[in-house]
Amino acid sequence: MMTQTVAYDDDNIFAKILAGSMPCHKIYEDEDTFAFMDIMPRSKGHCLVIPKSRARNILDVELDDLAKVMATVQKLSRAVLQAFDADGVSIQQANEAAGGQVVFHLHVHIIPRFDGIKMGPPASTMEEPDVLKENAEKIRQALAE
Amino acid sequence: MMTQTVAYDDDNIFAKILAGSMPCHKIYEDEDTFAFMDIMPRSKGHCLVIPKSRARNILDVELDDLAKVMATVQKLSRAVLQAFDADGVSIQQANEAAGGQVVFHLHVHIIPRFDGIKMGPPASTMEEPDVLKENAEKIRQALAE
Repeated sequence: MMTQTVAYDDDNIFAKILAGSMPCHKIYEDEDTFAFMDIMPRSKGHCLVIPKSRARNILDVELDDLAKVMATVQKLSRAVLQAFDADGVSIQQANEAAGGQVVFHLHVHIIPRFDGIKMGPPASTMEEPDVLKENAEKIRQALAE
Repeated sequence: MMTQTVAYDDDNIFAKILAGSMPCHKIYEDEDTFAFMDIMPRSKGHCLVIPKSRARNILDVELDDLAKVMATVQKLSRAVLQAFDADGVSIQQANEAAGGQVVFHLHVHIIPRFDGIKMGPPASTMEEPDVLKENAEKIRQALAE
């Protein structure tokens, strides 16, 4: 069994995105949360919401921070439906390697879904930066409406 | 695109479980949330957390109710790790049919994960009631510790 007290790794890539030392296609930011495009999307518009606090995953996150992350997840779920004319949304969140976690900063996947189209496999194909940029802009526009 | 204002269906089976008119293998209950075993588990110990409020999915749920659901999700994620000696946890939440939603009352899947073992397909094989009963008891014991 994994221990429930694994330390936060300050070198993870999402910590670097938050620190501004790693680029991303940013969608949204508030005092407590940050959202950006998944660079290996499982569907058109696949994006991520993370807390600004140092949380490894759902096992150690403070409940206030988790609530704020989920508020942003709701906001973006509504926005991606509008931005991509989607028919549904799949929300996923992985904890520890066995649970599918690759980056060890808590993150929630928002995966827009379309009737008759299967979700792609996780972390398989890098999307073109121009496409990510365009999709981020579409979501930002939906958020602004 | 699906509308974001689909009405809550009072006849869904999770509403019936909450009303006590449909049986379940209950794990946990508090003022705002309820948890029970998924009868078609994708791994050993797969369980569900739902709000008591009438929420269809993440698109319409009140943020306070969503926060309370996620607090219970954290509690149960820790409990299943202990109860089943799991190595990780996958959290999933489906919105609208295209997003994988089958029952139209907001629910969050807690899927214990084990090194080297793939998650089974969704909603495929009905588990034996005795197994569900035993697994629910293991999670309740872990919660009590």
